[in-house]
Amino acid sequence: MTTRTTTSPEGRTAGPAVRLGVDIGGTKTAVALFDERDAALARARAATPAAEGAAAVVAGVLELAARVLAEPAAAGTRLSGIGVGTAGVVAPDGRTVAAATEALPGWAGTPLAALLEDALGAPTTVLGDVQAFLSGELAAGAALGARSAVAVMAGTGIGGAIAVEGAVVRGGHGAAGHIGHVPVAAAEGHRCPCGAWGHVEAVASGPAMTALLRRERAHAAARDLRAVSAAAADGDAAARTVLRLGGGALGAALAGVVSTLDPDVVVLSGGVLEAGPWYEDALRAELASRALPLLRGTRVVRAALGADAVLLGAVSRAAVE
Amino acid sequence: MTTRTTTSPEGRTAGPAVRLGVDIGGTKTAVALFDERDAALARARAATPAAEGAAAVVAGVLELAARVLAEPAAAGTRLSGIGVGTAGVVAPDGRTVAAATEALPGWAGTPLAALLEDALGAPTTVLGDVQAFLSGELAAGAALGARSAVAVMAGTGIGGAIAVEGAVVRGGHGAAGHIGHVPVAAAEGHRCPCGAWGHVEAVASGPAMTALLRRERAHAAARDLRAVSAAAADGDAAARTVLRLGGGALGAALAGVVSTLDPDVVVLSGGVLEAGPWYEDALRAELASRALPLLRGTRVVRAALGADAVLLGAVSRAAVE
Repeated sequence: MTTRTTTSPEGRTAGPAVRLGVDIGGTKTAVALFDERDAALARARAATPAAEGAAAVVAGVLELAARVLAEPAAAGTRLSGIGVGTAGVVAPDGRTVAAATEALPGWAGTPLAALLEDALGAPTTVLGDVQAFLSGELAAGAALGARSAVAVMAGTGIGGAIAVEGAVVRGGHGAAGHIGHVPVAAAEGHRCPCGAWGHVEAVASGPAMTALLRRERAHAAARDLRAVSAAAADGDAAARTVLRLGGGALGAALAGVVSTLDPDVVVLSGGVLEAGPWYEDALRAELASRALPLLRGTRVVRAALGADAVLLGAVSRAAVE
Repeated sequence: MTTRTTTSPEGRTAGPAVRLGVDIGGTKTAVALFDERDAALARARAATPAAEGAAAVVAGVLELAARVLAEPAAAGTRLSGIGVGTAGVVAPDGRTVAAATEALPGWAGTPLAALLEDALGAPTTVLGDVQAFLSGELAAGAALGARSAVAVMAGTGIGGAIAVEGAVVRGGHGAAGHIGHVPVAAAEGHRCPCGAWGHVEAVASGPAMTALLRRERAHAAARDLRAVSAAAADGDAAARTVLRLGGGALGAALAGVVSTLDPDVVVLSGGVLEAGPWYEDALRAELASRALPLLRGTRVVRAALGADAVLLGAVSRAAVE
């Protein structure tokens, strides 16, 4: 790929094209400016002013964008596109936030693509953050070369995304990939944060496993997954059981997803994987034993790009669309 | 669309193009010759000589093909393509049978596309029969206009297929759509015909529900789903419970599939739906209450094309590829 020089409508000769990647999470927002080879020229990040509402969140993105565009590396470049990965469900047209949790109050309904296009003058496309994450892993990470893939992000919630024929699937409501909301036997009788009963997220997320351990007399004060993890590392049987239950439940959910989609690869990520081997071991064992026998060898890998996956995936869509 | 007249390599002027659709099931094989408007010019069907092995099954297809090609309506036409929907798993390249159950002994490994191309001289593409069924419903049936869809065929087994961006998904091993092999709570402790435990097919297929009812003292002689259905219609509580359990289990499995894929429509078909309202009512109720709340309104419809869906879907691929 070579650096092109183009002429803008105003007649000025503009410099090489750069794209802006944006990652809007419930707690932090990150942006990066990428050149045509997907190398980051400048980066910035800040806390997401979630409690202040949608306008403040968008203003925060614009402030970070102005910062990276003012970097020396951006001098003489031309912003050709913007790709966003955001918490919440993005409408299938990739322009508006369709739904969001209480982590981002007022975020639902935000016409995010139009707001960024108006402010920054470059075409914008928006994906859900886990959808963007999988786009990144497909473009340059652990799913490189795969035609179809399933991604799961296990942390405060259980997020997911799917890709078919090389492209992330948005779904009819933009909600494709909600693997956390697959019913599984191990979650029967447990209420999910979404309001339904028996979803895998109700036993396999960090807060869910912490709550399960807190039911044990000896662990009534366990505050977060770190406490669960520490107890498990110390040999505590109840902590290990909770982690195995959560990982096994997610493995059973993924077995159903694998039998339905027959993907080339399953990509695992999220903080819960760092809670010791019990969770991931149970996940892999349950997935291998409960999928259709023909699919038991389906490749399961850890994500490779870290926090950059969302930014790179968002920008890969900006380039394509 | 107009009828084209083309010149063959030999210099002869050939007539209008026709395509051959083939539906190979464990018990019967059907073929039909379609014109350019997807109207059937000729049809033939016969029992599948399954027990005699793969060569006999292929010979049976060729015999039926010869019969429809000899019909007066076929005179002067040119066979431009062949589309096949077959029982078993078809390799992702659409040419070879990758796996099959004991219903078709020796069928796995059959280079079906090559055999039909050699014998009939027209390019051939092969899909799994439920994949072909969904292609047909997308092209002209209950899923017409949908971009993404989930199909389920509930009968002797629980088959399924999925479509994304208007095209049926084959999957990495050709096995996409095996919805019968999704683990669900209601099937825990039940062994699936595939060998794994806890799959929805183990409680939601016709034979599975018949076996469950046979466990009741009063129904020890129940032979098939017809007996279950008749007992339910007579007000028998155990029979209705078995049908509700099966339908509810399939609804829970579909809730997970819907949360993962976010399809525009779910298409239901298969003989089990005819066993009275208990199965389908439980399926719909469970699907509606257990999917991600955002997706609870996902459209659920009955298939519209009957037995022609496989033939039309197979031929729609012949035309496209």
